[in-house]
Amino acid sequence: MTTEHAPTVPPTVRGRRTREAIVDAAAGLMEARGIGATGVGDVLRVSGTGKSQLYHYFRGKRDLVLAVIDRQLEKVLAAQPALGEPSGEGPGDEVRAWAASIYELHRDGGGPFACPLGVLSGQVDDDPAWREHQAAAFAQWERRIAALLVRGQRDGGGVDPSRDAGEMAVAVLAAVQGGLMLARVHRDLHVLALALDAAVDHVRPRSV
Amino acid sequence: MTTEHAPTVPPTVRGRRTREAIVDAAAGLMEARGIGATGVGDVLRVSGTGKSQLYHYFRGKRDLVLAVIDRQLEKVLAAQPALGEPSGEGPGDEVRAWAASIYELHRDGGGPFACPLGVLSGQVDDDPAWREHQAAAFAQWERRIAALLVRGQRDGGGVDPSRDAGEMAVAVLAAVQGGLMLARVHRDLHVLALALDAAVDHVRPRSV
Repeated sequence: MTTEHAPTVPPTVRGRRTREAIVDAAAGLMEARGIGATGVGDVLRVSGTGKSQLYHYFRGKRDLVLAVIDRQLEKVLAAQPALGEPSGEGPGDEVRAWAASIYELHRDGGGPFACPLGVLSGQVDDDPAWREHQAAAFAQWERRIAALLVRGQRDGGGVDPSRDAGEMAVAVLAAVQGGLMLARVHRDLHVLALALDAAVDHVRPRSV
Repeated sequence: MTTEHAPTVPPTVRGRRTREAIVDAAAGLMEARGIGATGVGDVLRVSGTGKSQLYHYFRGKRDLVLAVIDRQLEKVLAAQPALGEPSGEGPGDEVRAWAASIYELHRDGGGPFACPLGVLSGQVDDDPAWREHQAAAFAQWERRIAALLVRGQRDGGGVDPSRDAGEMAVAVLAAVQGGLMLARVHRDLHVLALALDAAVDHVRPRSV
């Protein structure tokens, strides 16, 4: 994740905590109400920080949205440990396990929930910098999925070695995003299960 | 589409035009700015209608959102004639032709554009009636896709006859929605093509 939009990286633990409290408050508000309906004043009130503290770390709302996008991507990736380093346990159906972990996350938490990153997608069009940052965040997620698929191509993990992992990753993430959105509209976890099954199915070798 | 939320169906051409102008203005505003940021006053201004006219057809904003959801579904289905009646030209790959028509619509119009219906999805959570109406609209779209798949199952149109058309339709619509969303984030039509290919691929018979 780039941090070029953050004028200062807090050098102290206390500074980092303050910055985190501001970003968490902004993320919560923007996720619930939308970016447009969230002002700097709301963020100050919810985070319990002062104006001079906020403007020490962020130039304003424009900066804050970029930091929120980073934060949402962090949340998404932290909730998907299967997209991290390979477990080293040898070949296996890592893709299916990853898809199952997404389903369980939503089932066990009382979902389906909206995707923390996807939910901002319609709203970042107001500012080209926001839209590009959102695209970069999704690209990072896609690269993690592509890496998972490449491992599945190499290790007999059930992923078609004849197709491009990057392109398959995009279709897989589209299925996850569309599945979450439709599951949320229908308030039905089964919709998410159907979309995830289709995603796993998509990357399998095609019998000729 | 249900119209139980519309207190009156305008009996005259002029009345129908007035109602349509109100709904079109509301749909345009809600699509661009969001439901939350669109007030009845904005709708009056953009549609050039008077308060008494608007309140003759709609009880208020709550009603107006329901009519906008109906309008967005109408737009979506009108843009996808392949989801209408079968062409009667005999067996063929209707599903692939439908997917190609979605791609061409976005390519030829200078897209990728957001889905008129999908773009409202995150915003209908504020009111259970809106959310249920949105779910009913998506369900209608899913039924049209399922009917297309059933024709493909019967007519040798390349759709797996051993799987449930309704469940496949949900996964297909999830791919379309997620594909449009990601294509829009990346400003890249190829992302839509990848998601549509995955959708078409999903419904094919699996070689054992």
